[in-house]
Amino acid sequence: MKILVLGAAGMVGRKLIEHLISIGSLRGEKITGLHAFDVVEPAFESDGFPITVSHGDVADKATVDGMVSAKPDVIFHLAAIVSGEAEADFDKGYRINQGGTQNLFDAVVAREGYTPRVVYASSIAVFGAPFPEAIQDDFHLTPLTSYGTQKAIGELLLADLTRKGHLDGVGLRLPTIVVRPGKPNLAASGFFSNIIREPLAGKRAVLPVSKDVMHWMASPRSAVGFCVRAAEIDGTEIGPRRNLTMPGLAITVGEMIEALGRVAGAEAVARIDEVRDDTIVSIVDNWPRKFHAARAQSLGFVAESSFDEIIQAHIEDELGGSI
Amino acid sequence: MKILVLGAAGMVGRKLIEHLISIGSLRGEKITGLHAFDVVEPAFESDGFPITVSHGDVADKATVDGMVSAKPDVIFHLAAIVSGEAEADFDKGYRINQGGTQNLFDAVVAREGYTPRVVYASSIAVFGAPFPEAIQDDFHLTPLTSYGTQKAIGELLLADLTRKGHLDGVGLRLPTIVVRPGKPNLAASGFFSNIIREPLAGKRAVLPVSKDVMHWMASPRSAVGFCVRAAEIDGTEIGPRRNLTMPGLAITVGEMIEALGRVAGAEAVARIDEVRDDTIVSIVDNWPRKFHAARAQSLGFVAESSFDEIIQAHIEDELGGSI
Repeated sequence: MKILVLGAAGMVGRKLIEHLISIGSLRGEKITGLHAFDVVEPAFESDGFPITVSHGDVADKATVDGMVSAKPDVIFHLAAIVSGEAEADFDKGYRINQGGTQNLFDAVVAREGYTPRVVYASSIAVFGAPFPEAIQDDFHLTPLTSYGTQKAIGELLLADLTRKGHLDGVGLRLPTIVVRPGKPNLAASGFFSNIIREPLAGKRAVLPVSKDVMHWMASPRSAVGFCVRAAEIDGTEIGPRRNLTMPGLAITVGEMIEALGRVAGAEAVARIDEVRDDTIVSIVDNWPRKFHAARAQSLGFVAESSFDEIIQAHIEDELGGSI
Repeated sequence: MKILVLGAAGMVGRKLIEHLISIGSLRGEKITGLHAFDVVEPAFESDGFPITVSHGDVADKATVDGMVSAKPDVIFHLAAIVSGEAEADFDKGYRINQGGTQNLFDAVVAREGYTPRVVYASSIAVFGAPFPEAIQDDFHLTPLTSYGTQKAIGELLLADLTRKGHLDGVGLRLPTIVVRPGKPNLAASGFFSNIIREPLAGKRAVLPVSKDVMHWMASPRSAVGFCVRAAEIDGTEIGPRRNLTMPGLAITVGEMIEALGRVAGAEAVARIDEVRDDTIVSIVDNWPRKFHAARAQSLGFVAESSFDEIIQAHIEDELGGSI
């Protein structure tokens, strides 16, 4: 079992590889090698299977082709520039997100008889407002960002190439991942993590939207679980509709803060400053709030069922188990 | 008003240009020139505005860029290879249908401050089975052919480029166009036209599926009307969801044949030979049968409301008004 991870230095990539190191096998086979690639060279320590690291640009055809020439059995394609950057830099967004995905698919298609499982990180950004109260699995793709458009194009190609037998793809529309570890960032969705992570660490955090904002979330631990399940599931179980909205938790910011209070007390909650930011408010207004992710759930993809669990996962995975 | 038509030698392109010649204006402006392009050089006679004809490959970037450099006000992008060919020749399908569309969009985006109305011919092939009884406007894109995938990718790009102000696009998911003039062809959908056109001309035709097969159809005349309406409609009326399922008629083969009997008598009906073709049966099984095209209808797109009208349009437009 040889594995290639594109986007290995990102949060999900890093946690996925650490998880693979800890379990040592995938699809019932011992992992014999893993290639971890990103735009910056990732670093991993494994006392089990060997890990190759490299860095470069997924938009460079030869770079991607070179990695695929080793014919990995499973490819996790998590490499992308984020929504805000793809919106600000139109050319770069299409070059990396559409072009990079095209390069990967071209490299696989070019190798006859080679049909690896390709796990493709898509996003709920393939959907744009207006929405029904809960978005069903058969709701149309209506992205309102270039990022969402690029992800949706990748989904369509993944499904068609799978149908034609050129690869064996599974696309995952990931919820917003909360609680992201690390420092606060400028992503419009950053506050969903900031308002939990910072207060837990004794720091102040800004809430730029009102407490009745609802959003669709899952923990980093769930995101890793989605990737592993996507690598292992029998493709015939999924059928031709290979892109799946992942399960998550539809929860309001107010409910998130209540959960923070239950887990870490009123003093943690008091560290949140409500400072409305109209730009972020208007961006978040166009985001999906709630899904009915029936297909993915029936196919064995599992997310948290309460926000208390999501906070607890953060405390266990990032804070050594206690606050 | 300068116009560019890609795919000008196809059935819809030809009829659209003939119609534009007859009306002489578009969007309330006198047409001052039209460039008609296709893989084979089209031929038109106009005693009004000048028509330039040329031929070439839409997959050739420079060819497309050269045509766009004249900055036409309205571009009709009807150029594509058909479903069967795109399925048989994977590379050619992506090169022409995805690549050609990309070339057109790139050429427009490259010219700052130039935002032409782009009317893009998509197809109900962006949808794949299983379907609900009637497909609503918010049903997801689930193509089961490479052609449908390529059309869906074009739709996504069209919407994103419109949102970003790079062009002003309207995508039309065309029904199957019936009655196609000309000779019987080998397209899987060909029989829908053959069983009407051939008996009207005193010739025999083969029906390869059962009479209870239902499908979504509109006349060539309606297809031209859709293109003109798409060129003229105010984009703000449409909003960001720029791709519209066109209205049509959901009708069974049996009902088509009954209409033929009403218009042309029992002897025309007797010229249809039922010879089941399992390959065609299985292809047609995956095609959409019926839509609820509410958005397009509310935006002023109009199709026939009976199959008698569709036959009548064929008799008027192709047979000189009588049989």
